Amino acid sequence: MAATSLLSSCCMHMGTAPPKMAANYLSSQPFDHLKLRSFGGPESSEKLKLLHKGDEFLCRVAQVERVPSFSVGQKFQLDYVIEAQQFDRDTLGAIFEVARNMENIERSQILKGYLMATLFYEPSTRTRLSFESAMKRLGGEVLTTENAREFSSAAKGETLEDTIRTVEGYSDIIVMRHFESGAAKRAAVTAGIPVINAGDGPGEHPTQALLDVYTIEREIGKLDGIKVGLVGDLANGRTVRSLAYLLAKYKDVKIYFVSPEVVKMKDDIKYYLTSKGVEWEESGDLMEVASKCDVVYQTRIQKERFGERFDLYEEARGKYIVNQDVLNVMQKHAVVMHPLPRLDEITVDVDDDPRAAYFRQAKNGLYIRMALLKVLLLGW
Amino acid sequence: MAATSLLSSCCMHMGTAPPKMAANYLSSQPFDHLKLRSFGGPESSEKLKLLHKGDEFLCRVAQVERVPSFSVGQKFQLDYVIEAQQFDRDTLGAIFEVARNMENIERSQILKGYLMATLFYEPSTRTRLSFESAMKRLGGEVLTTENAREFSSAAKGETLEDTIRTVEGYSDIIVMRHFESGAAKRAAVTAGIPVINAGDGPGEHPTQALLDVYTIEREIGKLDGIKVGLVGDLANGRTVRSLAYLLAKYKDVKIYFVSPEVVKMKDDIKYYLTSKGVEWEESGDLMEVASKCDVVYQTRIQKERFGERFDLYEEARGKYIVNQDVLNVMQKHAVVMHPLPRLDEITVDVDDDPRAAYFRQAKNGLYIRMALLKVLLLGW
Amino acid sequence: MAATSLLSSCCMHMGTAPPKMAANYLSSQPFDHLKLRSFGGPESSEKLKLLHKGDEFLCRVAQVERVPSFSVGQKFQLDYVIEAQQFDRDTLGAIFEVARNMENIERSQILKGYLMATLFYEPSTRTRLSFESAMKRLGGEVLTTENAREFSSAAKGETLEDTIRTVEGYSDIIVMRHFESGAAKRAAVTAGIPVINAGDGPGEHPTQALLDVYTIEREIGKLDGIKVGLVGDLANGRTVRSLAYLLAKYKDVKIYFVSPEVVKMKDDIKYYLTSKGVEWEESGDLMEVASKCDVVYQTRIQKERFGERFDLYEEARGKYIVNQDVLNVMQKHAVVMHPLPRLDEITVDVDDDPRAAYFRQAKNGLYIRMALLKVLLLGW
Repeated sequence: MAATSLLSSCCMHMGTAPPKMAANYLSSQPFDHLKLRSFGGPESSEKLKLLHKGDEFLCRVAQVERVPSFSVGQKFQLDYVIEAQQFDRDTLGAIFEVARNMENIERSQILKGYLMATLFYEPSTRTRLSFESAMKRLGGEVLTTENAREFSSAAKGETLEDTIRTVEGYSDIIVMRHFESGAAKRAAVTAGIPVINAGDGPGEHPTQALLDVYTIEREIGKLDGIKVGLVGDLANGRTVRSLAYLLAKYKDVKIYFVSPEVVKMKDDIKYYLTSKGVEWEESGDLMEVASKCDVVYQTRIQKERFGERFDLYEEARGKYIVNQDVLNVMQKHAVVMHPLPRLDEITVDVDDDPRAAYFRQAKNGLYIRMALLKVLLLGW
Repeated sequence: MAATSLLSSCCMHMGTAPPKMAANYLSSQPFDHLKLRSFGGPESSEKLKLLHKGDEFLCRVAQVERVPSFSVGQKFQLDYVIEAQQFDRDTLGAIFEVARNMENIERSQILKGYLMATLFYEPSTRTRLSFESAMKRLGGEVLTTENAREFSSAAKGETLEDTIRTVEGYSDIIVMRHFESGAAKRAAVTAGIPVINAGDGPGEHPTQALLDVYTIEREIGKLDGIKVGLVGDLANGRTVRSLAYLLAKYKDVKIYFVSPEVVKMKDDIKYYLTSKGVEWEESGDLMEVASKCDVVYQTRIQKERFGERFDLYEEARGKYIVNQDVLNVMQKHAVVMHPLPRLDEITVDVDDDPRAAYFRQAKNGLYIRMALLKVLLLGW
Repeated sequence: MAATSLLSSCCMHMGTAPPKMAANYLSSQPFDHLKLRSFGGPESSEKLKLLHKGDEFLCRVAQVERVPSFSVGQKFQLDYVIEAQQFDRDTLGAIFEVARNMENIERSQILKGYLMATLFYEPSTRTRLSFESAMKRLGGEVLTTENAREFSSAAKGETLEDTIRTVEGYSDIIVMRHFESGAAKRAAVTAGIPVINAGDGPGEHPTQALLDVYTIEREIGKLDGIKVGLVGDLANGRTVRSLAYLLAKYKDVKIYFVSPEVVKMKDDIKYYLTSKGVEWEESGDLMEVASKCDVVYQTRIQKERFGERFDLYEEARGKYIVNQDVLNVMQKHAVVMHPLPRLDEITVDVDDDPRAAYFRQAKNGLYIRMALLKVLLLGW
């Protein structure tokens, strides 16, 4: 991939602001004993040794000059993908740039001979297939474990750390899904190879957040100044929470929360947005919000969260449906998004409208994951 | 693969009769909104546009001249494999011709970079392995879901159609096993990529039917004029039903039904055969039938169909066993077939007889599936 | 791989003793009807026909001259891996030699186009991943069945033999895990392709035994004259039993058994060692043994073996822990090994000591399996 071809979509996000160190966020996190790895070329490893003297952190950055565009060798060092918040807008822009290039790749062999282990402690077929497709589209190979619990504490009492130390001997990168919040970080700290968090319990699902933001940029053409309506179950959906965090990295963003009373967005996100200068408001009027927004981001009301209160569930799920009426008030350039699976919160007749972006959004997950695999295994 | 090398085994079936349009069958089926796809070369797509003006159908055929052999570019267009009945004898002949070529391929790279998703809503290890082996023998890659129910309605209420729209973004062809009759057709209508039915509930299992007919032709050397004894559970076995449908496409076929009273062949098949001019008879004398037939097609008596009537099951299962005595009356050129798995309806000592064709039959499943994958992904 | 590059590490074990026929062991085993396969070149198959006149055995050996080193074409013929005892020390040396070469291979394509079926009748993620990684590191492909019971008798009553006859049609080599002792041998007798036993119930797990011995040689630099302490559950652990069998093939070996009273090493192994002239003793003093040994081989106390006697389990599991105190008395060159998974029988702080060899041991499993796949599919 020529360096020049990588530069097109990125500059927009870079502006003239000095690139923030991607490592800032992470170096303040409680990583107890981090590992350093050697790098591709002798030059870059020398540079990086200097950077690391005295301060250990897992996500490293090569010295980036104050220029409006990247070139190979000057990009951020990315060693793992653990949570959406680890990315600043410059890193996001750089990843999106690579993803954009991936859209043109039918089949490639750049990862030929590389092995990805999908270590899934709970099943998530959609996410797993997306990662495995991404790896194979790039010529790489996959070791699949859909049933990793058998591997672990649940079965014989082995620690996650011991499992990781074994699996890293068999593969070049680990994609992990776990039922416990924080498991991905523990794995990343242990492993001598890159780890990607494919969802850890109620915690994070960073590649979903990345593909959501990437989709907004691809569909609307910008992220600064965007107006997004988050609709549905805002209390329990981790995707809308992660999305709110990421949108806060852009300028002049406006967020509308549209949800039944029982599943309103929690205060922590509201405080966070306010602290970052992001405008937000709550609304009970989906039609009005839809008419103003660039993005209507619908989510599924999760029945399992309501316990025995079926009445509340039924009330909540029927309240905000995206249908032809909603499409009718939406602007021509606006889109409907959804993390999938959907039940009836978007009616099937919406699918045929070009503004229905949710299947394109799912496909974008493939490009984002191809990009991450490429960057983690080969560098920028 | 040179066009000339493909022509050997096919002519036999073509005769001088005008090739029937493979699309006839399907255009009369209730496909509501069919998709048209673009084709390989610019020439063929032009031709096909003309063909499609005003009438939409999923399985298309390029204009075939009244010549005794095919050449590349003049073959049937095959876009999916949904049910045995979709194939006419010319299409069958063309598929068998490709399968025949596959027998000589140890390892190939013609499908390098292509991705097949095996979307199995119920487990069927044998069928799945056969498809995955076929894909990998041709250099292709596989995304496996043995546990697709988790993906779907059973788990979170997603429709099959939504699942298909997601999976088609990750792969180039879908092989689906489902527990509901008709599911494969719904998937094929939705998908923008080819779908192969690997069994949908009590419905169809077309690749099994194809491999059965292919095996008869490979073993006996002909299909017209063939004498086949269908033995065992004829009421519940979908393989013998599909086989009867397919055999009706050939001339001067004679079918013998040999089964315990409680699992006799149903009337619909008998009426169908009669309507197609196929001679059939029921017999209680396996020895006599075996002495006349080219093929003794044995099947397993399915215990689960008898509920609590263990007495009837025991009576049925012991009644018609293929053993050395049966072999002794069979003709030298005749063969024993079985869709597998077998219990004791064929005794183990039969295995060593060269006329025991059932393991070769299983292997033929590999060649048929290689052929279908090749044709669906690359054309003829 | 050049023949010359294979010869380095082997000569040490060969000495000047005449190589024993690897087939000796197996020809005395109850293989009822063995299959002979054709070999690579016309020359070798001629040679082998002569060898086989009148005597059938599955593991064959080409005539080996009394020379201190091997060359291609003079090595042992290896057709399957069923039990640790099938290998004599010369064969072990030859396998270790190939494994040693595998350590230098990042990615290879020598097995490109070859298909391995992992037929697992009970789950064992660690073992399966190790084999699949080995196959893919060498460029081969994998058909995975984690759930092979569905395939078989448990589900519909098919025999293992019938399953094997089907699967051998889809693949080039079978790696099988089974819940019944002896299943692997049955599979090997049936299959026309190589079979590797990946554990059959309480029976054998030969690749674990091979990697254990390989690790000792890699870590300590020798096998003759080695002092090994086997610690923990010696009654139920098949790894320590197999290891004892294999160590008996080397000279001047001394084995210490250190275990709680309830899980002592059984008499059959003790008799066997004595009959082979291997010195052994039981000891209750882990510290003293650790100070003398080259290898402290720790194992997990298996809770499930104690039934309701939790008191005995608790007493047993706490008795012999490898911790810093044990490390302190161990010699500098000595190592700690463990088949994994471990619970708390080795404390986590031991991990950082360079003498903690258990994760390297797990990695060696990869090299051993790469070596076996290479030899079984391509020859030496």
